[in-house]
Amino acid sequence: MAPRKGQQIFQATLELLATRGYEGLTVEGVAERSGVNKTTIYRWWPSKAALLAAALVETDLLAMETPDTGSLRKDLEALVHGMIALLTQPPAADVAVAALGAAVHHPELATAAQHFFADRLARETAVFDRARRRGELRDTADPMLIMDLLAGAVWLRVVFRGLPLDDDFAAAAVAAVLDGVA
Amino acid sequence: MAPRKGQQIFQATLELLATRGYEGLTVEGVAERSGVNKTTIYRWWPSKAALLAAALVETDLLAMETPDTGSLRKDLEALVHGMIALLTQPPAADVAVAALGAAVHHPELATAAQHFFADRLARETAVFDRARRRGELRDTADPMLIMDLLAGAVWLRVVFRGLPLDDDFAAAAVAAVLDGVA
Repeated sequence: MAPRKGQQIFQATLELLATRGYEGLTVEGVAERSGVNKTTIYRWWPSKAALLAAALVETDLLAMETPDTGSLRKDLEALVHGMIALLTQPPAADVAVAALGAAVHHPELATAAQHFFADRLARETAVFDRARRRGELRDTADPMLIMDLLAGAVWLRVVFRGLPLDDDFAAAAVAAVLDGVA
Repeated sequence: MAPRKGQQIFQATLELLATRGYEGLTVEGVAERSGVNKTTIYRWWPSKAALLAAALVETDLLAMETPDTGSLRKDLEALVHGMIALLTQPPAADVAVAALGAAVHHPELATAAQHFFADRLARETAVFDRARRRGELRDTADPMLIMDLLAGAVWLRVVFRGLPLDDDFAAAAVAAVLDGVA
């Protein structure tokens, strides 16, 4: 749900976040940059945290396509490639890393990060439902755990270790989780 | 390597980081809190980023014991329990989350996070060496990837999803990676 010009508002919100940080993000700044009246923005979102939460989930910039390749392995590899792009390719990476980093420090933003990941998991559910129907998953397998392992590994390698991801990373990470390393 | 009173200096550094954020961390503040002369601190570490990098790796507060239970599964579960404690139990969690969150925004701090994770991986290597000798790991298994999957999942679940970790999380995450979910 968004007013007319929703995408412009979201884009202005995320650009300000990426360039000025969460402290520098203001509804006034978003209004100026998007050409939408401040009171209109406040009518839809009562705070900058609420605006940012909506922007993260609804912006075209971070839009996620749910893969449907016919195999769980290829679907998961496609999802990992998507996460790598999200965290390494500007302008999406500037926004995603700034937003997720800020969520660590600002409790009112934590909800935005939670919505973002919940929304992603809801979209990823189709991958796991199809995999179950094809008999590609153990009955006990937990989709949230699988996505946390894969997305967490990308975050840790890119953001915390600061190491480049080679072309094989997605296939290796998915193979570890699907096939096991033991 | 550290001067006398090294642990007091590190503790003061990490307390200031946790309470005031990276912006509020100053060598002057550390000197005052630890009772060590500012010039002494500067003689060892040329910047607050260098001081923080040393503190993260050398402080007793975040010290890591390398488990040696006799099985890779139990060793990895112990490591995951250690990561969960690191990210959820104060005062270590306040420090670890503040430092890792700040590393996202401050390029000069990224090196501190990289040292922290490289130091951990060096300590974890013994676990994988023993597992290989016992025949518990595939030849192709990559210790860094395994630790990134596990540590990343803890970070994502605790910090980004904001969800509590139940007692079974460590066992479930380790089982997924060792045995595979397919």
